[in-house]
Amino acid sequence: MRLGILGYGNLGRGVENAVRQNSDVELVVVFTRRDPKTLKINSNAQVVHISEIEKWTDKIDVLILCGGSATDLPEQTPKYAKLFNVVDSFDTHARIPEHFNNVDKSAKEGGKIGIISVGWDPGLFSLNRMYANAILPEGKDYTFWGKGVSQGHSDAIRRIEGVLDAKQYTIPVESALNAVKNCEKPELTTREKHTRECFVVLKEGADPVKVEQAIKTMPNYFSDYDTTVHFISLEELKKNHSGIPHGGCVIRTGKTGANKENNHVIEYNLKLDSNPEFTSSVLIAYARAAYRLNKEGHSGAKTVFDIAPCYLSPKSGEELRKTML
Amino acid sequence: MRLGILGYGNLGRGVENAVRQNSDVELVVVFTRRDPKTLKINSNAQVVHISEIEKWTDKIDVLILCGGSATDLPEQTPKYAKLFNVVDSFDTHARIPEHFNNVDKSAKEGGKIGIISVGWDPGLFSLNRMYANAILPEGKDYTFWGKGVSQGHSDAIRRIEGVLDAKQYTIPVESALNAVKNCEKPELTTREKHTRECFVVLKEGADPVKVEQAIKTMPNYFSDYDTTVHFISLEELKKNHSGIPHGGCVIRTGKTGANKENNHVIEYNLKLDSNPEFTSSVLIAYARAAYRLNKEGHSGAKTVFDIAPCYLSPKSGEELRKTML
Repeated sequence: MRLGILGYGNLGRGVENAVRQNSDVELVVVFTRRDPKTLKINSNAQVVHISEIEKWTDKIDVLILCGGSATDLPEQTPKYAKLFNVVDSFDTHARIPEHFNNVDKSAKEGGKIGIISVGWDPGLFSLNRMYANAILPEGKDYTFWGKGVSQGHSDAIRRIEGVLDAKQYTIPVESALNAVKNCEKPELTTREKHTRECFVVLKEGADPVKVEQAIKTMPNYFSDYDTTVHFISLEELKKNHSGIPHGGCVIRTGKTGANKENNHVIEYNLKLDSNPEFTSSVLIAYARAAYRLNKEGHSGAKTVFDIAPCYLSPKSGEELRKTML
Repeated sequence: MRLGILGYGNLGRGVENAVRQNSDVELVVVFTRRDPKTLKINSNAQVVHISEIEKWTDKIDVLILCGGSATDLPEQTPKYAKLFNVVDSFDTHARIPEHFNNVDKSAKEGGKIGIISVGWDPGLFSLNRMYANAILPEGKDYTFWGKGVSQGHSDAIRRIEGVLDAKQYTIPVESALNAVKNCEKPELTTREKHTRECFVVLKEGADPVKVEQAIKTMPNYFSDYDTTVHFISLEELKKNHSGIPHGGCVIRTGKTGANKENNHVIEYNLKLDSNPEFTSSVLIAYARAAYRLNKEGHSGAKTVFDIAPCYLSPKSGEELRKTML
């Protein structure tokens, strides 16, 4: 499978690394909006300006879109699904139905496959919510995130006056998690599910009291949470907080039996040292599916719900049944 | 969807209960090898002798086979896959390829769908092994079972002279589990992964020392494990050990990154109060998939690997994208 990627940020570099772990996949080209000459990559793929992308329709089998969900993907995925089999990690949950319809229309026009919202949430977490709901119709769903770095919240702190740099961790509340796993079916408020921990580097002369206040009262981002703020040096931030770990869990508890006397807990748990590298690994598995589905004559938009698991694996059905069933 | 079941043991009764939680499913008939008049069931389904089953081909959409893997299913699933869409929980891992081929042949002859090896292991555990392997090609898989009742091991104890009744629990070794979750990639022997705990009721006059010795040295079942034996009264066994709980987890740890510097842990965990009732709930979700796939014109043998998740849910694609993605 010949792969192209559009965008060379954390996700694009993650795909480049993950390709090396998949012997049936080759990274052929990196498309960029920058001047290709200024972009140094870590593989033998060609670096090509985005304006040339239409010349590549016969040279790659799947294009992985590594842009952001806010402005890049809503435009790029429908646009390029006409020309290529595409996979994206669109994660604005509320706009997924609209995005799906846009991609579906143009993928069908082009006779291509467009798989949207691939990654772990949306993605693997969605799959687990869906399987668990189909199996236990009477029950309750919970999703916890963390411990991990929220890029959005870290960015929000960086925009505060007096802040030089910052990292924000989302942390699930242990007691809430335990109540869920014990089938107590708690009703949890936002504050009861997660806490937020911030590591902040101040600019010279900035007032820590003011900054802390600005963080803790920020609507949407922090005001509904119990937030801890630590002021540290830039050196310490770089030394101890340069990773991008994340993770979390999806739990469904449900009941069965003549009198609903039996409890069941289905839990799916991820602990990831690198959020973008893991997401990239999921993207490659679904790129394989896009390629195969299209070879079989399918087209249109798909999500993780629509794709039989076997399409993700390089192994044959026979091998899978023998080794993994 | 009109459902029939063949066999009315723990699994059959579980299906009967689970049907009530699925408004799109109706249990129409229970086929039995016993005299139908002697079988009391807990629903309005008809009870019909197995010899009459061929008269029902137009009256049910899917037949769930609730027999055992040792002798029932190898014969029944291929036989009835010619006449009905069928789902079974065949769990003799080593014989799955052979069983698949037999069912595939007759299901294709009959133009029906036969989904085999549905449940949690094989089944949901297999799915999670497969997804995790496709996403993290460089890594290591672990499966732990328990804490839960092993029917096979309980039966083995009951066959020992002097034993009136017994229950055996399989228990994962906590320290091994933790080493796995900490990405230490331990190489674990059988003994290091699970312990076995037995609750045994002796017949009058039986020698506890002899029975304990017979259990602990039993090849295949106990000799490779650290086993604890408790002798208790029949009353205590009935009071405290009458349930059929089980569960376990599938874990894959893997590495990504330019220098394989990042660890990832994917963990799928089940805690089940009733093993047969949970398995039945999985069977119904896959019965829905069998029915739909066949309506779309598909036929042949399938496993959980071959079925897109959306087929399990009564919700539409649009609803799933809106609420679960």
